[in-house]
Amino acid sequence: MHEKYMKLAIQEAKKGFGRTFTNPLVGAVIVNNDQVIASGAHLEYGKEHAEVNALSSYKAPDKRFDSILYVTLEPCNHDGKQPPCTQAIINSGIKQVVIAQLDPNPLVAGKGKKKLEQHGIKVITGVLETEARELNPFFNCFYEQNRPYITLKQAITLDGKLSLDSKRTAITGKDTYQYVRKERNHYQGILVGSQTILTDNPFLLGTDQTLHPIRIILDRRGRLFNKLDLNVFINQASPVWIFTERKVNIKLPKHVEAIVLKSATVKSIIKELTRRNIHSLYVEGGAKVHDSFLNSGYWDQMITYIAPKVIGGNGVPAMSSTREVNQVIELTNVTVESIHDDLRISGRRC
Amino acid sequence: MHEKYMKLAIQEAKKGFGRTFTNPLVGAVIVNNDQVIASGAHLEYGKEHAEVNALSSYKAPDKRFDSILYVTLEPCNHDGKQPPCTQAIINSGIKQVVIAQLDPNPLVAGKGKKKLEQHGIKVITGVLETEARELNPFFNCFYEQNRPYITLKQAITLDGKLSLDSKRTAITGKDTYQYVRKERNHYQGILVGSQTILTDNPFLLGTDQTLHPIRIILDRRGRLFNKLDLNVFINQASPVWIFTERKVNIKLPKHVEAIVLKSATVKSIIKELTRRNIHSLYVEGGAKVHDSFLNSGYWDQMITYIAPKVIGGNGVPAMSSTREVNQVIELTNVTVESIHDDLRISGRRC
Repeated sequence: MHEKYMKLAIQEAKKGFGRTFTNPLVGAVIVNNDQVIASGAHLEYGKEHAEVNALSSYKAPDKRFDSILYVTLEPCNHDGKQPPCTQAIINSGIKQVVIAQLDPNPLVAGKGKKKLEQHGIKVITGVLETEARELNPFFNCFYEQNRPYITLKQAITLDGKLSLDSKRTAITGKDTYQYVRKERNHYQGILVGSQTILTDNPFLLGTDQTLHPIRIILDRRGRLFNKLDLNVFINQASPVWIFTERKVNIKLPKHVEAIVLKSATVKSIIKELTRRNIHSLYVEGGAKVHDSFLNSGYWDQMITYIAPKVIGGNGVPAMSSTREVNQVIELTNVTVESIHDDLRISGRRC
Repeated sequence: MHEKYMKLAIQEAKKGFGRTFTNPLVGAVIVNNDQVIASGAHLEYGKEHAEVNALSSYKAPDKRFDSILYVTLEPCNHDGKQPPCTQAIINSGIKQVVIAQLDPNPLVAGKGKKKLEQHGIKVITGVLETEARELNPFFNCFYEQNRPYITLKQAITLDGKLSLDSKRTAITGKDTYQYVRKERNHYQGILVGSQTILTDNPFLLGTDQTLHPIRIILDRRGRLFNKLDLNVFINQASPVWIFTERKVNIKLPKHVEAIVLKSATVKSIIKELTRRNIHSLYVEGGAKVHDSFLNSGYWDQMITYIAPKVIGGNGVPAMSSTREVNQVIELTNVTVESIHDDLRISGRRC
């Protein structure tokens, strides 16, 4: 019975998709006498939380005392941009709260639950927890592992090539190009290596004019700083962060920031991005950047777009370097999708 | 109307699948007064042709004079293992013959048709020709291009790797392994490079005990000749042909033949295989052998098995060499199939 209503709360949560980060997707439904009498979601970063939206859409005050609130994530117990949800629930007179997932932040996990119980509200947790967790892979990763959720994305031919040797090469088709631009919008940051910038001169933008991801470039040797006519320098639609080991003596455009690290390893970059509250990262390559992430162990998902094409010979092979590898990594949760002539294969790291 | 019955003839032809080579698949139906009264296929190499099988299954001799014979390939006009079909058709009293495809062999094309016409039989050609041609890609290629139909087959990870560096590596799963063994049976020959033999020590067999393909190995430097404990030397289930540039001074097992060429290029190997009446070749790699075939232009189809795995680093990239490539090749007639956790992607060269 609880699962039936939690499923509805999970559906409700999805209404905020793409609009809540760095907050999580959360959904809530209020059930009285086996009838859903109210529902709500967290719809946008900084706006009301799901529980409050559900409570305020609740039009039958006489029924509230024996109602059950189903919520996909533990109600918050602290003042943020919004007052604590626990207080709103206590004030409402709700008698029972069913929670799918406790807060992933170990500093606050269980505190909302405890507060509700202290006020005589019965609390059940763990109902459809796995399903509810799927709503917020980025948020969970960030608070549980203290780093962004990292997706490695590549576009290859059937023989695993990224491009002709050092030449900008169209691999996947137009539909895939549009799909990737939309997919970028799901992430807070896009990361590429300087070679990709030099070879492809991309804009690295999403499709959403108001919410382009931050463009993050790994340029250890500072090869880009004397090339201010590159598209990422000219186009100001979103910030550009350049990780480098070289001191920058040149005046950069306003939207561009050079982040100088002594050693710009994947680990040190991830640490800085975590400090800057980046919950999700879409790593678009090239081959050596991808391999550095593979090697670091800091990655969660791999998305491969495959075009029905062949290059062979000295075409640039995907995810390659001189690093000695002794192990094959299997992916889980694999999904396959057709995008016109291309395939999109996504999988998670075990 | 003609198309409806030709479709049936094409269906009929498929009954011989995997049993007729180096003969083509051929199907025939006999139609009288809009009713199919007989049908037949070529079912096995050396046995009766489709037309004769249809005629002999024809149980209503009074109707034969105004019947139409539909046949997927032009009836033969020469004595081979079987007497000419044209004569059987003439003898039968059939008044009209509808043919999908003329014989692809330029030396005989049109001769069967002409013979029938000389005997007052009305002949129509080209009905569902494209569909009928699909029955016999190997046969058509062999006679039209004077070489075997060549399929490049690879099994790769999502990052386009064939294996860990110089180590036998399981890439695809058990179901794919069985699928590939069955697929080998559709070809007359399997070709691999000597490095694949040294690294994997495979048996290179199909699943059909009576009809294993010929195992063809490219071993320019003759690296295998002092390793007679390799599985292809021990197992005698099918012939082994080794193309080499080195004189062989050692006594080889009976089923093994060394074919010494001055220069064992793809072109010279294909020429010799054509001379030996090999209509179809399944090229299983490794990376450099595949790339030699890509470079030669002698290939028709590419089959890629992809496992949801990643290697990265110094894993062996598919279809690679130092050869400079300036062009991306697009495949056509692409099909995608799931085999348990793996994908099978097949495409034709334009």
